[in-house]
Amino acid sequence: MKKKIIIIAALTGGIQRKSENPNLPEQPEEIAKAAVDCFNEGAAMVHIHARDEEGNPSGDPLIYHRIHGLIREKCNVIINDTTGGGGNLTSEDHRMGCLRAEIKPEVASLNMGTMVRTAGKYKGVLFSNSRSTIETFASEMLKEGVKPEMEVYNTAMFREVNHVIERGLVKKPYYVNLILGMPHQGGIDASPKHLYHMIDFVPKDAVFAVTAVGKAQLPLTTMAMIMGDIVRVGMEDNIYYGKGELAASNAQLVARTVRIARELQLDIASPDEARERLGIPKLT
Amino acid sequence: MKKKIIIIAALTGGIQRKSENPNLPEQPEEIAKAAVDCFNEGAAMVHIHARDEEGNPSGDPLIYHRIHGLIREKCNVIINDTTGGGGNLTSEDHRMGCLRAEIKPEVASLNMGTMVRTAGKYKGVLFSNSRSTIETFASEMLKEGVKPEMEVYNTAMFREVNHVIERGLVKKPYYVNLILGMPHQGGIDASPKHLYHMIDFVPKDAVFAVTAVGKAQLPLTTMAMIMGDIVRVGMEDNIYYGKGELAASNAQLVARTVRIARELQLDIASPDEARERLGIPKLT
Amino acid sequence: MKKKIIIIAALTGGIQRKSENPNLPEQPEEIAKAAVDCFNEGAAMVHIHARDEEGNPSGDPLIYHRIHGLIREKCNVIINDTTGGGGNLTSEDHRMGCLRAEIKPEVASLNMGTMVRTAGKYKGVLFSNSRSTIETFASEMLKEGVKPEMEVYNTAMFREVNHVIERGLVKKPYYVNLILGMPHQGGIDASPKHLYHMIDFVPKDAVFAVTAVGKAQLPLTTMAMIMGDIVRVGMEDNIYYGKGELAASNAQLVARTVRIARELQLDIASPDEARERLGIPKLT
Amino acid sequence: MKKKIIIIAALTGGIQRKSENPNLPEQPEEIAKAAVDCFNEGAAMVHIHARDEEGNPSGDPLIYHRIHGLIREKCNVIINDTTGGGGNLTSEDHRMGCLRAEIKPEVASLNMGTMVRTAGKYKGVLFSNSRSTIETFASEMLKEGVKPEMEVYNTAMFREVNHVIERGLVKKPYYVNLILGMPHQGGIDASPKHLYHMIDFVPKDAVFAVTAVGKAQLPLTTMAMIMGDIVRVGMEDNIYYGKGELAASNAQLVARTVRIARELQLDIASPDEARERLGIPKLT
Repeated sequence: MKKKIIIIAALTGGIQRKSENPNLPEQPEEIAKAAVDCFNEGAAMVHIHARDEEGNPSGDPLIYHRIHGLIREKCNVIINDTTGGGGNLTSEDHRMGCLRAEIKPEVASLNMGTMVRTAGKYKGVLFSNSRSTIETFASEMLKEGVKPEMEVYNTAMFREVNHVIERGLVKKPYYVNLILGMPHQGGIDASPKHLYHMIDFVPKDAVFAVTAVGKAQLPLTTMAMIMGDIVRVGMEDNIYYGKGELAASNAQLVARTVRIARELQLDIASPDEARERLGIPKLT
Repeated sequence: MKKKIIIIAALTGGIQRKSENPNLPEQPEEIAKAAVDCFNEGAAMVHIHARDEEGNPSGDPLIYHRIHGLIREKCNVIINDTTGGGGNLTSEDHRMGCLRAEIKPEVASLNMGTMVRTAGKYKGVLFSNSRSTIETFASEMLKEGVKPEMEVYNTAMFREVNHVIERGLVKKPYYVNLILGMPHQGGIDASPKHLYHMIDFVPKDAVFAVTAVGKAQLPLTTMAMIMGDIVRVGMEDNIYYGKGELAASNAQLVARTVRIARELQLDIASPDEARERLGIPKLT
Repeated sequence: MKKKIIIIAALTGGIQRKSENPNLPEQPEEIAKAAVDCFNEGAAMVHIHARDEEGNPSGDPLIYHRIHGLIREKCNVIINDTTGGGGNLTSEDHRMGCLRAEIKPEVASLNMGTMVRTAGKYKGVLFSNSRSTIETFASEMLKEGVKPEMEVYNTAMFREVNHVIERGLVKKPYYVNLILGMPHQGGIDASPKHLYHMIDFVPKDAVFAVTAVGKAQLPLTTMAMIMGDIVRVGMEDNIYYGKGELAASNAQLVARTVRIARELQLDIASPDEARERLGIPKLT
Repeated sequence: MKKKIIIIAALTGGIQRKSENPNLPEQPEEIAKAAVDCFNEGAAMVHIHARDEEGNPSGDPLIYHRIHGLIREKCNVIINDTTGGGGNLTSEDHRMGCLRAEIKPEVASLNMGTMVRTAGKYKGVLFSNSRSTIETFASEMLKEGVKPEMEVYNTAMFREVNHVIERGLVKKPYYVNLILGMPHQGGIDASPKHLYHMIDFVPKDAVFAVTAVGKAQLPLTTMAMIMGDIVRVGMEDNIYYGKGELAASNAQLVARTVRIARELQLDIASPDEARERLGIPKLT
């Protein structure tokens, strides 16, 4: 049986703005449209960051609810929301806003360590994820039946991964997202060598996705299709399609990933096939 | 500047027959046509094994001469010949037949260790490359001005690579071809992990190509485009295009490699760009 | 020529107290005596944290001056001071107190990333080393002629190492201390695998020491004598001599390291041999 | 519970002679005495090569029988015999002579690949271990109830290890001996990096020993005590105790290993503890 690649589209993120790439979806209608377009191209999951009307990261459950509803009208793509907050959104409570939406996400990010923002308006602002924060977020997701996507930005963070596993705060199959090239202090660089080492530390009974920030998105997600089966692309991580060429849309990035997978004789997983792989219940 | 990928097409090899894939080029005209077709698709180098009229591996300098001449009538692709012989062709002298052709190859294979054939008619026949054989072949290539492509089938063979470097029998840039998945006893398996380890041992001042035998050709040469810049594809290593689908031609395999490189935003090296990278003089 | 092992004795640290091990040196006379005892056993360098009269971490230049003077009366061991501060000592200025002592250290720690304290009274207090802090500390050391010992607690921190190298804030040979098993969030675990990976990322033109916290001190510094030549032992990192057996002194730990080195047929570097290896001027 | 180190003493080997080191045991009484002396120092297993009266490698079952009997009169050390033969002893039948002894060995070597001798009188003579030879030897050991010690000289040989596992020719726990620095062509060099890679490929449900030839015996077996629990020392692999200093006896090398293990706070396994770890029945 051919391997099936699960494609995640990270649509918006918490850092980029329309000023960097006017095609970045920010408002609920834009985000939902991007999600559906990505689904149509082959994405099994979308990763969502809500923004307020000014385009700032927002933890408002109503905005998440609205995005979720608009997507659910059109397709069954897996909905994966951030709990990472932003430079302007640092309280634990606000960061967990997506979990309070009436229509809940199926997956939410669980950031596995503390880093320091290094650029822009929020330079120096901590991206704080102490063990106590991690436990709080994981417990809340467990309670809400939301699958945690454990975001690992360097190999030290596997200590926290192993901790929540040992504490029973996450369920099998454990789901880890290896993020390379995060510009925050604490992020490892995006190189094949770091990717190899990261994969080498993925714990038993865990599946892993690979995310690479910036121009490494393309080569490292291609390697990840070969070394694993879950890849994340999208404008959150990379606003360019090629050198000096802005991405026209998230769907454009998904479409390329699908073309590469097809060239590699790999199949593309549907949302339900991805749910099965990740241990997420089907939609009812 | 974009990285330029050097594509080698290994057209025929010493093991497969038309009975396995009727599209395999065996006779001089077929081999030359395949070489030109691969050049037209983007190959910078062709790797050639001569066959006799029955399709058996041959070390006849006249056959090599004829193939070289037919190729040179049409294009400037780099000509790289085998000195590996075959189950029926084990004497050092016959294995070096290509070096005696009037039109010489620019590159020739230099096999860096001893293995045992494990299948077919010649099961159990040694593929013998003792240190003394290696020295003899390397010296001959040095004398003839032919660039050795050092074929490394497992990490132990780097001992021989380092030996010929120390002895001054090869010139900078040293050129190593990492071969994974060789079915001979002594070949390492074709996996991303073995590939990573192989690359980890490439000596200073060496450039490396990646070759993978069988169905790993596609994924591992794709990884190699990302971790390096020289990849070998072709029917010598893999007679299939996909699962259960025989390759229509060597050019078909080259064309796919070019498409993947383009999707990865990589450029394709011309023969002269490859000569520059490998320290091979331009044709005069 | 036999390899010479450079032994660093980390005498006190900023976390342990006499309540954990009554043999921990805290006051200047105790610290200086420990330094001299370690020198007599074979240490080429001592790593010092000053404490105030209550035993709390202190950045008082006068205390550092006093310790330095007491040591210099007796021996020429290399003096290496911390700039890491402590849970109670977080301002940049206080952390750099040692650099203001009249008798200066020859080496000072330069911590290459931000972590979170995870235990004890200061649980949750940030060990903050943003890029701007790192640049400030490195510049100050450059000005004062103090050799930075770059403390790397995970592989992501090599990004900062490469940054100060590129910025010219550190001089060749770059000196990196690989610390494994730091309990702070952000520290990687102490295992042979992590050690191997850490060493794999040490930049060109850098020498590296290995430090392991807790019971891994003994096995990992033994591996480090084989894979490198600089090891750190001492009560800062491990207050035990064996399971359930408190260390009697820092000198006891140095003596064991010397015995192991001798069994491994390795020689022990004198302070001046260590200065030469690290590019530190001899005392005048 | 402390880890218990299993020490194997490789007493004689098939290459060295008394002319290289007069303390090398060659005759049955010498070999048996060396075995008992090593047992008394802490070895749990002895690895034996029989020699004839001239000191040449011999496959005579009577000589093996005599050695076994002399050892069994004195102690219960695990008896592990070679099936590797020698330059003068290449037939499969002669190589398996130890298995025909009336008093049988408990363990026998099973060499997992083909190499070429590179020095001395037998330079160029193949050390032939094709798949068919491996299967023959493994089947014979299975029939005789002798535990195979799978000798792996490079990472390619794990293909054969996996093959005999899949074929059911070896029983759990599979027992692999990683040999580094074998001078035969095909042996990998003895370095920490190669050791790390070798260990990385040890299959599931296998225990591994580490053997290093030449001066690497001391550092690599020390690393092996930390990364694993079975180490092989002895004059087969290294006739020196230190630079320019011949070993006085095998027991001298075992004694040093014991001292290092003790310094590392490790215990030493008795023969029966080693039998339990390796799945070998106790003597009756």
